[in-house]
Amino acid sequence: MGILKEFESRDRERIGEDLHRFATELYPICRSITGDGIRQTLERIHRRIPIQFSDVPTGMEVFDWTVPKEWNISDAYIKDSNGTRILDFQCSNLHVVNYSIPVHATISLAELKPHLFTIPERPDWIPYRTSYYKETWGFCMSHNQMLALQDGDYEVCIDSRLADGNLTYAECYLPGVSADEVLISTHACHPSLANDNLSGLAVATALAEILAEREHHYSYRFLFLPGTIGAITWLSRNRDMVGRIRNGLVLTGLGDAGGFHYKKSRQGNAEVDKAMAHILRQQNGPFDILEFSPYGYDERQYCSPGFNLPVGCLMRSVWGTFPEYHTSADNLDFIRPAQLAASLRTCVALIDVLENNRTYQNLNPFCEPQLGKRNLYRSGGGVAIGPEINARLWVLNCSDGKHSLLDIAELSGISFSSISAAADILCESGLLVAAAGDRVVTKAS
Amino acid sequence: MGILKEFESRDRERIGEDLHRFATELYPICRSITGDGIRQTLERIHRRIPIQFSDVPTGMEVFDWTVPKEWNISDAYIKDSNGTRILDFQCSNLHVVNYSIPVHATISLAELKPHLFTIPERPDWIPYRTSYYKETWGFCMSHNQMLALQDGDYEVCIDSRLADGNLTYAECYLPGVSADEVLISTHACHPSLANDNLSGLAVATALAEILAEREHHYSYRFLFLPGTIGAITWLSRNRDMVGRIRNGLVLTGLGDAGGFHYKKSRQGNAEVDKAMAHILRQQNGPFDILEFSPYGYDERQYCSPGFNLPVGCLMRSVWGTFPEYHTSADNLDFIRPAQLAASLRTCVALIDVLENNRTYQNLNPFCEPQLGKRNLYRSGGGVAIGPEINARLWVLNCSDGKHSLLDIAELSGISFSSISAAADILCESGLLVAAAGDRVVTKAS
Amino acid sequence: MGILKEFESRDRERIGEDLHRFATELYPICRSITGDGIRQTLERIHRRIPIQFSDVPTGMEVFDWTVPKEWNISDAYIKDSNGTRILDFQCSNLHVVNYSIPVHATISLAELKPHLFTIPERPDWIPYRTSYYKETWGFCMSHNQMLALQDGDYEVCIDSRLADGNLTYAECYLPGVSADEVLISTHACHPSLANDNLSGLAVATALAEILAEREHHYSYRFLFLPGTIGAITWLSRNRDMVGRIRNGLVLTGLGDAGGFHYKKSRQGNAEVDKAMAHILRQQNGPFDILEFSPYGYDERQYCSPGFNLPVGCLMRSVWGTFPEYHTSADNLDFIRPAQLAASLRTCVALIDVLENNRTYQNLNPFCEPQLGKRNLYRSGGGVAIGPEINARLWVLNCSDGKHSLLDIAELSGISFSSISAAADILCESGLLVAAAGDRVVTKAS
Repeated sequence: MGILKEFESRDRERIGEDLHRFATELYPICRSITGDGIRQTLERIHRRIPIQFSDVPTGMEVFDWTVPKEWNISDAYIKDSNGTRILDFQCSNLHVVNYSIPVHATISLAELKPHLFTIPERPDWIPYRTSYYKETWGFCMSHNQMLALQDGDYEVCIDSRLADGNLTYAECYLPGVSADEVLISTHACHPSLANDNLSGLAVATALAEILAEREHHYSYRFLFLPGTIGAITWLSRNRDMVGRIRNGLVLTGLGDAGGFHYKKSRQGNAEVDKAMAHILRQQNGPFDILEFSPYGYDERQYCSPGFNLPVGCLMRSVWGTFPEYHTSADNLDFIRPAQLAASLRTCVALIDVLENNRTYQNLNPFCEPQLGKRNLYRSGGGVAIGPEINARLWVLNCSDGKHSLLDIAELSGISFSSISAAADILCESGLLVAAAGDRVVTKAS
Repeated sequence: MGILKEFESRDRERIGEDLHRFATELYPICRSITGDGIRQTLERIHRRIPIQFSDVPTGMEVFDWTVPKEWNISDAYIKDSNGTRILDFQCSNLHVVNYSIPVHATISLAELKPHLFTIPERPDWIPYRTSYYKETWGFCMSHNQMLALQDGDYEVCIDSRLADGNLTYAECYLPGVSADEVLISTHACHPSLANDNLSGLAVATALAEILAEREHHYSYRFLFLPGTIGAITWLSRNRDMVGRIRNGLVLTGLGDAGGFHYKKSRQGNAEVDKAMAHILRQQNGPFDILEFSPYGYDERQYCSPGFNLPVGCLMRSVWGTFPEYHTSADNLDFIRPAQLAASLRTCVALIDVLENNRTYQNLNPFCEPQLGKRNLYRSGGGVAIGPEINARLWVLNCSDGKHSLLDIAELSGISFSSISAAADILCESGLLVAAAGDRVVTKAS
Repeated sequence: MGILKEFESRDRERIGEDLHRFATELYPICRSITGDGIRQTLERIHRRIPIQFSDVPTGMEVFDWTVPKEWNISDAYIKDSNGTRILDFQCSNLHVVNYSIPVHATISLAELKPHLFTIPERPDWIPYRTSYYKETWGFCMSHNQMLALQDGDYEVCIDSRLADGNLTYAECYLPGVSADEVLISTHACHPSLANDNLSGLAVATALAEILAEREHHYSYRFLFLPGTIGAITWLSRNRDMVGRIRNGLVLTGLGDAGGFHYKKSRQGNAEVDKAMAHILRQQNGPFDILEFSPYGYDERQYCSPGFNLPVGCLMRSVWGTFPEYHTSADNLDFIRPAQLAASLRTCVALIDVLENNRTYQNLNPFCEPQLGKRNLYRSGGGVAIGPEINARLWVLNCSDGKHSLLDIAELSGISFSSISAAADILCESGLLVAAAGDRVVTKAS
């Protein structure tokens, strides 16, 4: 049974609940681009799918960048003059500017204020801030809390360690018939933010689970890594093998209530671009196809001009366009099981297209073959042909070795699955064969 | 005088009446894809234009198909228990499923019913049904008549013969200066259906009459043949010469009140596609240009991927989109003289473009030539130039050997006839010559 | 400082007044395609910018044309039977059909009338008429004046001379680093018509003044010449050097209140076409981009198929579409200082783009370079990047040697000046270098 059909046969509600449960499990961990938080996260993923860990030491040069010191944190707080914790890292890991250097001091409110970050427009929410490459420290709190601070001395403590260590990322490689690869990449470095990117981690993990259970043409490589520096590190260490990547997708922001947004690869007309556009057009519900731009998630790196890989990005709401983005309001209520499940379904539909998007040659290219004698046509005249026969005629007419099934689906306006089913039947009937050059298998090394 | 101008000078009303009269003459004949009915039809066409008949014997293999047995029918009826003909082939040849095998039996209503075809949504109309490739028999009647049938026994009789014989088609070949061909193809296999396709037969015949009376650049080949199997047979027997076909048109459904529909060839940008689009844009009245699709009339065969000929299809209402399609309501009232005449006019306009669509070289390509000294410009400054001079400027500017007159008409938004007239004047003035490669004449063999 | 920035720093109001003052200075001169009027005009331009005069004798063959006799005029009038000048050339040089042959006679009103030209729809305006290539004479007057003429005899006098002489045009050549040229062409042959084309003359002269004061990459060639015959003559005498013209612009009708219209070159996608479209899109205010057509100003000659130069035409209202066109209402009130200054600004913006439209190579094409360590990025995470950083990311991502800065501006929707500024900073940082093939300098000979 095809991967999409198999997926459709499962209980969608339960799929959604599983995805949300996994996001819930990962939510409390204080992740960053290095350190124990991201390692614990990757370990939880490892319980579900086979993954290989890579540790890259601090100081390693990766293209124009250097792997930073490893950051870890045990505790952090602000105490008022009564010794009461008025801000407590144990309540929310967003309270500390991610990558803050250690500090322990008693300072005045005036001295403290430059180290406080809030969102005046959303006075109850805590912002998410980082300072990876500039050594500093800071606290994030609600604007209302900051306004209520009285003059006086405050004990500030960030019990963090910034020291030589490792950057850790994980790969789940699922070999297929061909060594040609589909890359799925997600960032795993954000702390307690649900949509950005526990949603991506949960969907990618579930997708790998589905693929691990079945045979597939492509080899699939799932990357769970810290944003930016992780993708750069991986590319730096895998420069010679990226030529195997036939299609790729960055997954992020897949749990909110917004319509799908697919940002095209820099190539703009890669197979993944055409396939995702086809799927979104066929699905019900709002969606938008965005042209490539160089700002965003790790497609920035995969689509840098030296690589220019066919990697797009699938999201629901676009980063920065919704108020919950990078705040404490991006919590477990902001992502919904049904939305996560529908996102996973879209990914499965993409893989269904990629796996089955072949190019055929019509063996009877001169005039139509007589479908009737093969029981592939209606028996009597006078009644219009049905959509199945129409799909067969399209596949036969366009299978000249130049049109893929996805091309035919787009030309005809018929769904890829119907076109693919027609091709299967025509192959069985001996009317169609794989075109020269279709699926020349690169042997897995 | 140009073919279009000459046509425009004739009495349009009379043209329409002649077309309708010919359709009326052909209407009663019981045609099928083989047999005496189609032969009688081709004989009537032969009285008007020179045609050559081809008989292809039953059993001949034509690509993936086999020429079927020849079908003929003398009579058919259903009698009730009183011996009264309650259904009579002599009243309408649609009453018998076309290609029915012979039958003569007395059966119960329950046994009869699976052999009856009606249109419940149009209870007064008789449907048109065929069963060419599955041996069976049946009757078509109005739904109301079927509902009125009483229980009891019925004598059913179809006095038909299905036996080895011939498939017959006709060609009208009108040699031109060049052996390059324009193909006009119409199906001649439908019984008493006026729009589908007596309209096409009448228009094609009249077009051939017009062309037979004059010199022309292209050779014209008119095919009158049974749908599908006829086109496949012709292609099978003429495989080596189809390379001569520069442009082609399938004609069908040209008498109803709908706007024109032109379905593009599979190539999509063939000269005939651009020419027909230009003509329909220039004409008053609604029209639509349809992308190629593999379902339809014999363009299916001409545009199969092995041939991929530049053959489009001109219709008014599209098959299957109007209720009268393939029913007894597609009768002589459904097609009107004025509509037939306007369809013929469109075909003549197409031929006018194809015959005159040449590519020229401006002999004064550096700056504008001085039109004034040749009396091709206005004499005084200060008054805007007229459309004739504008057309001349367009032809001069674009005649670089790369733009045909049709290209120039499209670029400028000026009608082809104005552009062509401008080119004629500029040629006379010695400012323009045929470009290298224009109209390299393939000698007629 | 860039040419546009420098221009923006100047007092726009004063610029507009200077432009209008120069138009006012030129207004009274009776210009034609030859003769003292155009020579006096070119002398006035010479007072402002370095120009070289060319005299081409009557009878010289220039492509398909012949340089006409030189026309000069001292006086002209119509006197009524009382000897009163009822029409006086000294009041408006539009009163005489330009290029009228001399006449001195007393004739009846009936004999006079075929020599009178008016505009019935605008009964108070005097039309502008010429008769360069057909020897005749005539007067132009308001329709109301003509209606008031009484029967009787009239003394008509045109004291003109049509004799062998010269056609005179002027070039301002401003050599740049490269011998590659930008051509700016304006017609200088119309008499007292302000928008058509004292506006073009004033703007072109001011643009040359600006360029003469600074270094520039391209060499600039400004042509001030009689329309049609002047451009043809210049092309005829400079046939071998036109290959140096990389971009060009015809300037006309730049003082009226209409929105800008840019008519594309025949090539349609030349750098000047893309640059002008970008500038007009970035500017506030209405504009329209027109496809090339062979009727218009001297782009007709530059874009004739033998030359096909990348020369467009910038206007405000399009000739022939406003009632004042070629009438006495195209006077000094019809053109406004602010509109002239905005037109000059558009030309300066074009030159700013052309001068700076380079193609770069990203020296760190694999992944993004780390902008932060170069102080080219925001320091802390969590806040969206600003437009300056976004421009840098676009330049880095697209600088693969195939996209010019103008291409990147169009892809990103960011203004050329922001993209260009980003490229400058990235070059300074050593992240970007000129691509192979960028600005290969043709040495000025």
